Amino acid sequence: MSHPAGSSQRHRWSRRQFLSVAGAGTIAAAGAVTLELSRHDGDAAAPRDRGVPFYGAHQAGIVTPAQDRLHFAALDVTSDRRDELIDLLRAWTSAAAQMTGGHQVGTFGATDGPYLAPPEDTGEALGLSAANLTITFGFGPSLFLDGDGNDRFGLAAKRPRALRDLPHFPGDNLDAARSGGDLCIQACADDPQVAVHAVRNLARVAFGVAGVRWSQLGFGRTSSTSTTQTTPRNLMGFKDGTANLKAEGTALLDQFVWVASGDDPAAAWLTGGTYLVARRIKMHIETWDRTSLAEQEAVIGRDKRLGAPLSGGDELTAADFDAAGSDGPLIPESAHVRLAHPTSNGGSHILRRGYNFADGSDGLGHLAAGLFFIAFTRDPDQHFIPLQTNLARNDALNEYIQHTGSALFAVPPGVPAAGDRFVGDTLFAG
Amino acid sequence: MSHPAGSSQRHRWSRRQFLSVAGAGTIAAAGAVTLELSRHDGDAAAPRDRGVPFYGAHQAGIVTPAQDRLHFAALDVTSDRRDELIDLLRAWTSAAAQMTGGHQVGTFGATDGPYLAPPEDTGEALGLSAANLTITFGFGPSLFLDGDGNDRFGLAAKRPRALRDLPHFPGDNLDAARSGGDLCIQACADDPQVAVHAVRNLARVAFGVAGVRWSQLGFGRTSSTSTTQTTPRNLMGFKDGTANLKAEGTALLDQFVWVASGDDPAAAWLTGGTYLVARRIKMHIETWDRTSLAEQEAVIGRDKRLGAPLSGGDELTAADFDAAGSDGPLIPESAHVRLAHPTSNGGSHILRRGYNFADGSDGLGHLAAGLFFIAFTRDPDQHFIPLQTNLARNDALNEYIQHTGSALFAVPPGVPAAGDRFVGDTLFAG
Repeated sequence: MSHPAGSSQRHRWSRRQFLSVAGAGTIAAAGAVTLELSRHDGDAAAPRDRGVPFYGAHQAGIVTPAQDRLHFAALDVTSDRRDELIDLLRAWTSAAAQMTGGHQVGTFGATDGPYLAPPEDTGEALGLSAANLTITFGFGPSLFLDGDGNDRFGLAAKRPRALRDLPHFPGDNLDAARSGGDLCIQACADDPQVAVHAVRNLARVAFGVAGVRWSQLGFGRTSSTSTTQTTPRNLMGFKDGTANLKAEGTALLDQFVWVASGDDPAAAWLTGGTYLVARRIKMHIETWDRTSLAEQEAVIGRDKRLGAPLSGGDELTAADFDAAGSDGPLIPESAHVRLAHPTSNGGSHILRRGYNFADGSDGLGHLAAGLFFIAFTRDPDQHFIPLQTNLARNDALNEYIQHTGSALFAVPPGVPAAGDRFVGDTLFAG
Repeated sequence: MSHPAGSSQRHRWSRRQFLSVAGAGTIAAAGAVTLELSRHDGDAAAPRDRGVPFYGAHQAGIVTPAQDRLHFAALDVTSDRRDELIDLLRAWTSAAAQMTGGHQVGTFGATDGPYLAPPEDTGEALGLSAANLTITFGFGPSLFLDGDGNDRFGLAAKRPRALRDLPHFPGDNLDAARSGGDLCIQACADDPQVAVHAVRNLARVAFGVAGVRWSQLGFGRTSSTSTTQTTPRNLMGFKDGTANLKAEGTALLDQFVWVASGDDPAAAWLTGGTYLVARRIKMHIETWDRTSLAEQEAVIGRDKRLGAPLSGGDELTAADFDAAGSDGPLIPESAHVRLAHPTSNGGSHILRRGYNFADGSDGLGHLAAGLFFIAFTRDPDQHFIPLQTNLARNDALNEYIQHTGSALFAVPPGVPAAGDRFVGDTLFAG
């Protein structure tokens, strides 16, 4: 770290004091700047942590133990230039590596003279730790072919077979302003200010090339993605994600999450990546809250307090879907846990990584709240779409929820190491 | 704590196992239930803390060291019955005492038989700690006199002199759907799920008597309210609230926060209370982010990195508004820190307790973000309105912000101890 001494006085940093190679505010600069200032420099008492590694075979934020807070953003590319899209991805890679390491984006101050340029980082995370920030990028179907069928960036031939708008499911009431997008950013952290800072600064880096289409904040992760985590509760008050795929289940992850070589000959670039399904699910919480405990538990198929399946045992006991009660199976035919279970879906699993949300009020005297569902899947056609079709048709829970947003993104593999590589570069190779 | 043994089996709790005295779902019940189940019962591994005391001379959540997360809700009373309003306040008092102690509201299960009633608590905070939850209640002007001048609940004669809609300030662009309200609930906690749970359950208790008019989530407290806290940053990236009133400054709190006996003969019931000012301030962050560091610092009047006043020193150095630079005062005449300072406002202070917010996108390619300003003041007429008038006319920051919501509430004194007292009861006495 090199930063000017005597900074307790109003600092007049000269160009010489920085190694930054270009003016702030351009894509090229953001990609090229040298890491200059950690978040901690301004506050010696700030907590420090090492953060979650950014580089690796897979992107972070997928099997990383789910952090507590989310800021998710979908962006549309406003440029029609392939080189600007590539520059954006380079700049995002650089900025994401810096921020997930607990650092600011780029330099803090001016380059051509004191104070005359905007800071490259917006600053609100100065003094905060990395807070286990992960940043995960994805590509939407419209990046490959727009609504008019135009091959915007010469990528159409590489569009993954399964990367297209999800079908309409029964009960869907989708808001176009909360659906779709050319690009996505999933920022997860244990501090919401760190997650919001990440999305904001990536949106800033994208200025002139891409703009925010929609964004969603979440809190209270609704899934465990590691055996080291306790199972959280969703806003229906039930433990959620008990039977989720876990980071430690490597074989299942290879089978159900990571795209393998040969899965899709047209999209070999996606090998080591995955697909991200996002569904904004509004809960009719006032209706739910006036439903008896017996009915709530029958709808979910689990005991509310402990999370045990209604067939007995404790939270981690496997559900016995054949166990009979006095008036039918203990776990009803329409119970969510039955219909979502691999045994009802040809043995397929998905990795869920959703968050609770509360977005003010609905204008009708009620809070607007629900679940921002995120899942990662190796093949949406084979694993998510049949599952969601099954749920949308039969799930007793449908009386209490409504899907209001939907998006699908292809998540490229990770950037193996610092250097010339950037997120998604395999898509643009060759 | 009494809860049934063997609850790892599906529990069939009988009426005998609970001390609850009334069916769930009614105001009377919520006020009368016996504390039955702590949040921790379902999860032995959950963190425990003792929470912030609910009872006291003043309500908690005012000088309590600012927690990191906020859920604020304004409600309108839909009933025209004074007794139902009183019952609501009794029920809220009971529920708030339970939740701030880390417990569920009421009982978890049924009363007249197993499972046949809705749970009294929605359950999503089961297993979570109290997370320093505080719940602070307030009364809006419209509770005393509605828009048509009706004395809805026989309270008009007790309306505090200063409790009326704030005046229009230059630049205000208020959304009626984000302004006003008969009642308010400020829930602050270090876990957003705990804060959201609190508002939701209080809204649930109010069902049939009051509905949510608007609600706002916040993160990243933008003020310190105790000398034990570091100064956080707002979404402009600047340290905020350095010169705020602090819990430890008792004399200043008595002078500027707590309503004293004799302040307002018509509203003696408010003695020991205060006023809460809420202002939703949208930030034009994309414009701000393209502004040079020099300009940003001139607008605020502080150094961005350390928070030191531009007159020199470090964060805690007093600003020297007379210090001259080469082209005018080092702290410009229009700098926010100058105009907000007590020396520019007849020596008056306010206790700020705001939060950052990010509410999705604005539909124009930008994130929708800003500051949800909350302040507590002994006399809005004397302290807040002149200050805000001064800022609205002269603050250089106005180029980058817009006030989009506004509300004022009278915050009654605290409930001294568990028993027959309830929040706001002094308003209804005599």
